[in-house]
Amino acid sequence: MAQLMAVGLGQRPADMAVINATLVNVYTGEVLPGQGVATGGERIAYVGPDPSPCIGATTTVVDAGGKYLVPGFIDCHSHLCYLVTPDQFLRYAIPTGTTTIVTETLEIAFPLGMKGVLSYLAALRGQPIKLLATAPVLATPSPVAEAGAYGPREVARLLREPDILGLGETYWAAALNGNQRILDIFSTVLKSGKVLEGHSAGAREHKLQAYMSLGPTSCHESTTAAEALERARVGAWTLIREGSIRRELEEVAAIKDAGIDTRLLCLTTDGVEPPEAVTKGHMDFLVQRAVDLGFPFITAIQMATLNPAQRLRIDHMVGGIAPGRYADMLLLPDIKTIRPRLVISNGRVVARDGKLLAKPRRHRFPQWFHKQFTFAQPKPETFAIPTHNGQPQATVRTIDMVTPLVTREGKATLPVRNGYLQVNGEDNGRLIKAAVVEWKHQPGKVFTTPLRDWGLKRGAAATSAAWEATAIITVGANDTDMALAVSRVMELGGGSVVVVDGRVVAEMPLPIAGIISLESIEEVAASQEKFNHSLHALGVSFPNPHLSLVTLTTGAIPHCRLTESGLVNLRDGKTLGLSVE
Amino acid sequence: MAQLMAVGLGQRPADMAVINATLVNVYTGEVLPGQGVATGGERIAYVGPDPSPCIGATTTVVDAGGKYLVPGFIDCHSHLCYLVTPDQFLRYAIPTGTTTIVTETLEIAFPLGMKGVLSYLAALRGQPIKLLATAPVLATPSPVAEAGAYGPREVARLLREPDILGLGETYWAAALNGNQRILDIFSTVLKSGKVLEGHSAGAREHKLQAYMSLGPTSCHESTTAAEALERARVGAWTLIREGSIRRELEEVAAIKDAGIDTRLLCLTTDGVEPPEAVTKGHMDFLVQRAVDLGFPFITAIQMATLNPAQRLRIDHMVGGIAPGRYADMLLLPDIKTIRPRLVISNGRVVARDGKLLAKPRRHRFPQWFHKQFTFAQPKPETFAIPTHNGQPQATVRTIDMVTPLVTREGKATLPVRNGYLQVNGEDNGRLIKAAVVEWKHQPGKVFTTPLRDWGLKRGAAATSAAWEATAIITVGANDTDMALAVSRVMELGGGSVVVVDGRVVAEMPLPIAGIISLESIEEVAASQEKFNHSLHALGVSFPNPHLSLVTLTTGAIPHCRLTESGLVNLRDGKTLGLSVE
Repeated sequence: MAQLMAVGLGQRPADMAVINATLVNVYTGEVLPGQGVATGGERIAYVGPDPSPCIGATTTVVDAGGKYLVPGFIDCHSHLCYLVTPDQFLRYAIPTGTTTIVTETLEIAFPLGMKGVLSYLAALRGQPIKLLATAPVLATPSPVAEAGAYGPREVARLLREPDILGLGETYWAAALNGNQRILDIFSTVLKSGKVLEGHSAGAREHKLQAYMSLGPTSCHESTTAAEALERARVGAWTLIREGSIRRELEEVAAIKDAGIDTRLLCLTTDGVEPPEAVTKGHMDFLVQRAVDLGFPFITAIQMATLNPAQRLRIDHMVGGIAPGRYADMLLLPDIKTIRPRLVISNGRVVARDGKLLAKPRRHRFPQWFHKQFTFAQPKPETFAIPTHNGQPQATVRTIDMVTPLVTREGKATLPVRNGYLQVNGEDNGRLIKAAVVEWKHQPGKVFTTPLRDWGLKRGAAATSAAWEATAIITVGANDTDMALAVSRVMELGGGSVVVVDGRVVAEMPLPIAGIISLESIEEVAASQEKFNHSLHALGVSFPNPHLSLVTLTTGAIPHCRLTESGLVNLRDGKTLGLSVE
Repeated sequence: MAQLMAVGLGQRPADMAVINATLVNVYTGEVLPGQGVATGGERIAYVGPDPSPCIGATTTVVDAGGKYLVPGFIDCHSHLCYLVTPDQFLRYAIPTGTTTIVTETLEIAFPLGMKGVLSYLAALRGQPIKLLATAPVLATPSPVAEAGAYGPREVARLLREPDILGLGETYWAAALNGNQRILDIFSTVLKSGKVLEGHSAGAREHKLQAYMSLGPTSCHESTTAAEALERARVGAWTLIREGSIRRELEEVAAIKDAGIDTRLLCLTTDGVEPPEAVTKGHMDFLVQRAVDLGFPFITAIQMATLNPAQRLRIDHMVGGIAPGRYADMLLLPDIKTIRPRLVISNGRVVARDGKLLAKPRRHRFPQWFHKQFTFAQPKPETFAIPTHNGQPQATVRTIDMVTPLVTREGKATLPVRNGYLQVNGEDNGRLIKAAVVEWKHQPGKVFTTPLRDWGLKRGAAATSAAWEATAIITVGANDTDMALAVSRVMELGGGSVVVVDGRVVAEMPLPIAGIISLESIEEVAASQEKFNHSLHALGVSFPNPHLSLVTLTTGAIPHCRLTESGLVNLRDGKTLGLSVE
């Protein structure tokens, strides 16, 4: 601290100085030519027209040659505890100018609880850029996972960590359905002064406001400019999403013409899956897209820097180029080209011209992160659906795909043979089966349902990378391949596999907590592509069948979801059996 | 929480509803006609075009008749622990639309330490509006007060209180002079995630930035638009001051034409003394002045609502009209007239048409807040200045008044008689004496100095309401009246008095910690006016001699200050004796 001050006063040479830059001042919205920055260690000591008193013989001087110096980008809502290890993701994120990522940790919390989240923080620390986190609320459609979820005391413990900035996303329906555990957690977080990440997909007017009145102060689920405006008007930080789960920036971009104060608008990915990370990169893509869609340059930059920093209450550390803040800065060639020529993080050059120069730290996970499934592997008959009505047919609930991710509760009248429902290939080939096999709270507990319009004609797929569940999900056109697929996932100690006619045709091992690979991001991307191509070859037409599979258990996407205890209608959170009679 | 949600959902009648309002949305900067608000208890449940589902038989409905509904005003930097009790100040503040005040507590901390601050919070709680506080750093020019000041552990304790939002003002010179105690306190606050209030009066360029690099993220000392712009550019929340200590809004107002993002600009009083509180009011005056000076209406409102709320990281609670926030709202007749017709705080109507409707709570201070001076009263010879050079005259340092508040170190060659310096009336009547009598750390320790251009021709004044010191300050044209003035302050158990020719002609008792009266604000205002008029009659031409007196010990105002140990030059913090030989 005293050293930083000495640099600012010109009494000690800066470690690095950027001179001759056009400064993008996100605080005032000005673009100022002829500026410089001096750093001391990881922090900024001086920014302004005259850094020369801070420059000494030992100072590394970067001549910006008039290029645009902007703060490092912040991804304020991401999912870094999923599919790949942080170091692998950073290899692609850092050269795009991302210098801070805030990640959800729910993926770790479901299998490994509070202890897992605390331990996982070690994988996020000591990296070339800042990786911060939110504490998970553990909202889930699964009755057994909900029953086993922790409460406010554990969240309070997590919030004591300085790199946990608040509570992660809580789906509005889970809160509005009056889950007292969740409301108690909200109270705990509000008392801490840290932030609550909202998630109000599809909520409007009174429901949106009732949810926001509970304490969440953001939403990353606006799909239109009107939805974004409604959220900003109720004081919610409005995170415009452009990532693997959805791309909404183009639809929402019309908000730039509303003439409003844009301080509450942020850009976020909500997570980028490996295949997209290695091809499209990370935050530069979002800012470029915002500029291309007509957002003013300074607004686009603010949406990825100061605005998210203020939203997360870390604006004293990041989000702008100012004394005391971390020296996180990018050089852009011009205001139309959001491709950093130089990325500086914590006062060090970490990437140049798209090439990574810093080495992300590989974390060694403790043995208890390595998933072991100890219950009996399923048999084909595990997925048989008995009926006891004594009739030749039965009418049952189904999960119907509305889009590759959105579902709804459906219905089917199906033949019964030998006391078992006949599902596969029924309704003109539109029906297959989906099942979850719980592995933590009631290991081996299975629920199987008819699934409509998944498109699968042959074979089966299974994954342990289920969202908000401690379960292996499987979908299949026959029970034998489903059993094999689940068994293979168990043998791998976690992973995603595709099986056809008794043969494994694609597999992606995910040994860390059953959700994360230890391979390189390129390998994981290739595995996921192969998984998807295998399913495309089997008739599935979703763009990302892996995503369609893992989300069958989530409470984040409407409307009907699969749990070990039955179907769950997210509107009211009620668990339903198959029988409608 | 569940009840608030039920109101939002229209399942439970709102406690209050405002209908037919023109909503000033500080988040988006929009002014939206035909809006309503519904409340549940102290909080807002709904804001938007259709509050009707929230209105029931038990709802108090306020028809705004199209008037402008704005968030309650926030004074983000004030001094509420001084001269009057909070309830007395609130009688005038509330009708002006102030619904949140953040106060310094240093005035309590100097005499009573951490324990005093914690206890004083009780006087701030349970009031009709929100009174929040900052923890004092105890920066002081006084060597004995500095030696007795607490450290980071006590500050950490204070920061655990939810209504302590961060660290109070720290004068830049105190930090830059390398006081390790202060730097350690800064570290503690930065770790807590709470904010540091800056104070960088007169600092520019490298000194300003070196100071800001230590952690402070605000400054309320800009005297010009250029200074304000320089602060905003380095990411400092720039609090434009209009209060008793200084009025800078007019000078700074030109910043409105700079075309910058104004999110970091706030309005603040930095404290309002009783005579001004009873005549000019509080926050409405500042916002009105900003509007009159040409700030756009919405910007002026944001500077007193959302901006300070974000600065203080309480924007999830106050600063805008949105679900979950406290129901703090004002009805303004039009966008040119910042006179609230109605003030709603915590969901209750607390003032109407300038008339207070809520009753501020009178706090009963514990006995140990009542000041008792136990050391011997001074005699006239206490203020004699011995010299030992054996010459008929001596050259010594003086404190010279540059403005009614700003001082500088001066010099005088004065006659010596019987070994004592002759001061009073020297230099063509420009010189008198000033002295401090320490009462806490080294009770009875006295330092006396010549004081130039105070204007006093006869008599003396004394006060225990010294800024940043545990001392009674006295100034006088003769030693006998000085001794009597100090003695009278001691008899009162604290206060400010004026003495002429052995007779007390004005006195304001301040029995609580030696700095706060238990009388009504009108009585205190009258006492202070009488104190000032008495000094005006004795030749002093400063507008507010009381303020000129109490600030003789402060580190907040340049350049040369009075302590029990000598003069202190604030530039380097060095303590100086009188002798220049």
